[in-house]
Amino acid sequence: MVTIQPEKKVFTLVNMFEVSPDKQQQLLDMLVEASQTMKQIPGFISANLHKSYDGKYVVNYAQWRSQQDYDAMQDNAQATQHMKVAAGLAQSYNPIFCDVAESVSV
Amino acid sequence: MVTIQPEKKVFTLVNMFEVSPDKQQQLLDMLVEASQTMKQIPGFISANLHKSYDGKYVVNYAQWRSQQDYDAMQDNAQATQHMKVAAGLAQSYNPIFCDVAESVSV
Repeated sequence: MVTIQPEKKVFTLVNMFEVSPDKQQQLLDMLVEASQTMKQIPGFISANLHKSYDGKYVVNYAQWRSQQDYDAMQDNAQATQHMKVAAGLAQSYNPIFCDVAESVSV
Repeated sequence: MVTIQPEKKVFTLVNMFEVSPDKQQQLLDMLVEASQTMKQIPGFISANLHKSYDGKYVVNYAQWRSQQDYDAMQDNAQATQHMKVAAGLAQSYNPIFCDVAESVSV
């Protein structure tokens, strides 16, 4: 089960892909396929793919053990090929590398 | 503990606040304070606040029971006042309303 915990220092990548609504599902499918490849790569923890209700975005909330693991993934030709196709479907994307500073929950 | 699960249909709000790096911590503190207020409002599940490594963003990954609960929160003067102050600290922000379509994890 995927968890968000400030005390577990994971390297978090939030990426908002802006997409034409008629391509939202196709982009989602491509990112799921990419995530299945990345799952085989050391350090991958999770990829969580979201569809916006307005059809205009796919948001990936991904977790890696460390930035080193994420950087090493970029040497994997299969993973980068998937990402290239996904990027080609999007109008824009903006990957933000961050960590969980605070979590407030009921 | 905060979890991400496609089978649990929660209303998810991903908001990237672009911020001047010298105000990143102040914006984070303000959003934590806002989240403590929202925690008292029916339907709030969690707010997860992230700091980007480059200092330029604060990302809120928030979960509500439903859109109705989220909309009702906007009638809470204290909550909206906090959000107004937070928005004033940011250069831009882009709230995306979505749900978790797929989760791939090890």
